[in-house]
Amino acid sequence: MLIDKTYRSSFWGANGFDNLKNYMKQSNDFIKNLSGLLQERSEAELNFSKNLSKISKKLSRYCSTELTIYEAWGMSASEMEQEAEAHKNVSIAINDIYKQMKELDEMFAKNRKPHEDLVTKTNKDLKRMRCDEKDRSKEAFNCHKDYEKARDTVQRADKIQKLDGKAQFADNEYKKTCLKLEEARQAYETAVFNGCHELQKLDEIRISKMKDMLTAYNNSISSVIPVVNQSSDKIRESIGKVNATKDMNAVVELKGTMCNKPEQVLITFYAENSHNLADNERRRFLLQGHLSSLQSDATTTVKALEGIKKTMDVFKRDNFKNEDAYNQARHGYWQCHAKLEMLEASQYKISRALAELDCSAKPVSEYEKYIEKSGERGHEIWFLRKPYPPDYPGTVPERLLPQKSCDDYDDEFGK
Amino acid sequence: MLIDKTYRSSFWGANGFDNLKNYMKQSNDFIKNLSGLLQERSEAELNFSKNLSKISKKLSRYCSTELTIYEAWGMSASEMEQEAEAHKNVSIAINDIYKQMKELDEMFAKNRKPHEDLVTKTNKDLKRMRCDEKDRSKEAFNCHKDYEKARDTVQRADKIQKLDGKAQFADNEYKKTCLKLEEARQAYETAVFNGCHELQKLDEIRISKMKDMLTAYNNSISSVIPVVNQSSDKIRESIGKVNATKDMNAVVELKGTMCNKPEQVLITFYAENSHNLADNERRRFLLQGHLSSLQSDATTTVKALEGIKKTMDVFKRDNFKNEDAYNQARHGYWQCHAKLEMLEASQYKISRALAELDCSAKPVSEYEKYIEKSGERGHEIWFLRKPYPPDYPGTVPERLLPQKSCDDYDDEFGK
Repeated sequence: MLIDKTYRSSFWGANGFDNLKNYMKQSNDFIKNLSGLLQERSEAELNFSKNLSKISKKLSRYCSTELTIYEAWGMSASEMEQEAEAHKNVSIAINDIYKQMKELDEMFAKNRKPHEDLVTKTNKDLKRMRCDEKDRSKEAFNCHKDYEKARDTVQRADKIQKLDGKAQFADNEYKKTCLKLEEARQAYETAVFNGCHELQKLDEIRISKMKDMLTAYNNSISSVIPVVNQSSDKIRESIGKVNATKDMNAVVELKGTMCNKPEQVLITFYAENSHNLADNERRRFLLQGHLSSLQSDATTTVKALEGIKKTMDVFKRDNFKNEDAYNQARHGYWQCHAKLEMLEASQYKISRALAELDCSAKPVSEYEKYIEKSGERGHEIWFLRKPYPPDYPGTVPERLLPQKSCDDYDDEFGK
Repeated sequence: MLIDKTYRSSFWGANGFDNLKNYMKQSNDFIKNLSGLLQERSEAELNFSKNLSKISKKLSRYCSTELTIYEAWGMSASEMEQEAEAHKNVSIAINDIYKQMKELDEMFAKNRKPHEDLVTKTNKDLKRMRCDEKDRSKEAFNCHKDYEKARDTVQRADKIQKLDGKAQFADNEYKKTCLKLEEARQAYETAVFNGCHELQKLDEIRISKMKDMLTAYNNSISSVIPVVNQSSDKIRESIGKVNATKDMNAVVELKGTMCNKPEQVLITFYAENSHNLADNERRRFLLQGHLSSLQSDATTTVKALEGIKKTMDVFKRDNFKNEDAYNQARHGYWQCHAKLEMLEASQYKISRALAELDCSAKPVSEYEKYIEKSGERGHEIWFLRKPYPPDYPGTVPERLLPQKSCDDYDDEFGK
């Protein structure tokens, strides 16, 4: 690699290596801190994934019904599981990067140490040698001073010679110490020189690895994009299939009962039953009375029906503007009509009893086949069970509205 | 809307409305459960967002240094904040859907109730009227039986007439009850009819709203995609800018010290200082001795230098195959050279003292300008502070290797 100035040519002097050492320590701290944050991010992803998965599972349970709206929300449940899986994979990938970052942290710390330690040690040696040099210098000076003093005070020649020897010996010792000091200085310089070089190599590896790890990190974060994208498409597709009509038809299909078959209780008098105590004369008298009373009720009811019919015609002329009121009127019409049928069927039952009494021909009625009996003997209950037409209440009974076909009404309302 | 069969034409009879009621209850439960899950998802998003934001803030703090590798990781920090923001927005959006879903839940429950209650009430009324009808029928029958019994046992005519009146009155009361029963049946039928119709409308609204909410949900989930996509691009761009050379140059620029200026302690003898006690004769004698001793050391050092030079030549002939060994040799050469300079500068200092003593011309030396003095008087310390060349250790001192230019060495190594 090409840098303008190498670390070994740039970090010198009293503070140089300390500066570099501080920078390396900061770099090491950065790695350590980053690895901690990667672990946190990995945990955040895993936590998020677990939450999504939990929600997805519950949602799936709620969406087991086979209706399009349930299926669409069910799709969002299974896609949430995909999303959970994607975030789990991110968590795993980042955890791997965290481990690599931790290894880098340890490698970096381990490889810095011997170089830094050697610089510290040789620096200490150098300082000790500087003290040594000073001591030896003073010693030599003192020896020379002793020699000069002895010469001044005219001492014995052998003593002076001895002091001269001592001074020259001290000079020599001092020179040796100076050379050793230069050696110590060089050892320190070498330690700094090599240390800077090795720390530079280490720093270069660090930057390169941290760059690679950032690339891996970025790739893992963005790996959720295609998953969420695909999920979103699938959910959108499911939403497109949501069809309220289809669902409501399915509900009718699955849970609906048969078409309406009202259970109307018919009026059943004592005189109708030939097993009862009354004699024929009395029964005939009573039945004829009942018949005329019911006829009067039926006539009133027909009039009411005609009244409702007129109201409906008004709505019709208004082009069915007030739809609700029209529907209500139509429903009233049906109710009135049902009452009329109940009266007519009851009348028929009485006529039938009268015919039996007179041994004349049994009367014919459309109600005959819908009349059913139940209950205990002597207190039978007679029902009229005439089903409504399948398009009820789209049409109204024909007998009073022959001018309009059922189909016309179907087109207008009720569906 | 068009469904094949309306709810009001499909849910009849004993179980019909109950079926629909159950279905509506299940639908209501679905809404309620779904709203709970939306709340959970909103919380999961918020939680994830908070975690990301927390990590991002810490990461930002660690990335304040202006080096490309820090800037790239710093970009991942600020993009993590964007990601956090995106998930926070998802949380808010889903929380809104949760609120809508809760409103739908309440609306649905509130609107179902009156219809269901009315069906329950009219059904109860109908049952009570059926009992009434039965009671009245029995009463009428008993009146007729009493009448017949009186006739059989030949009782008084006025008593018989009274019983006849009672029987006919009972028949009439019974008939009225039957008509009331038919009314009660119709009220029940109407309640079911209208109830089914209203519940169908409600169900249609529910499906439509749940569909809309799923669309909103899907949109909010996928709103993170463009954010993560853009973040990923920005991080990738930052990674592209990571440049180890640039970073290491910046470190040198910011933290580097000046080029190496070794502090060599020179050998300083007692005899050098004219202020010391020794007479000229003694000083001259001592200085000449030191000079010759240092000359001998210098000669040894020069020989060592030549030895190292030969080793280096061997590596050179090998085309610098063993780069590390060559670099080591070169460093050794520098060390040896520094020692030589220290000896030569010390020698110069002694020559200078001798010249002063003899009052002859001061000798000339390249070391002159690099020699500095410090320390207390009488015990001065002399330093040689001759800076290394800026391209140290790329070149080796010229005097022994004149055949190669500095630039050649630069090209080969050391940078």
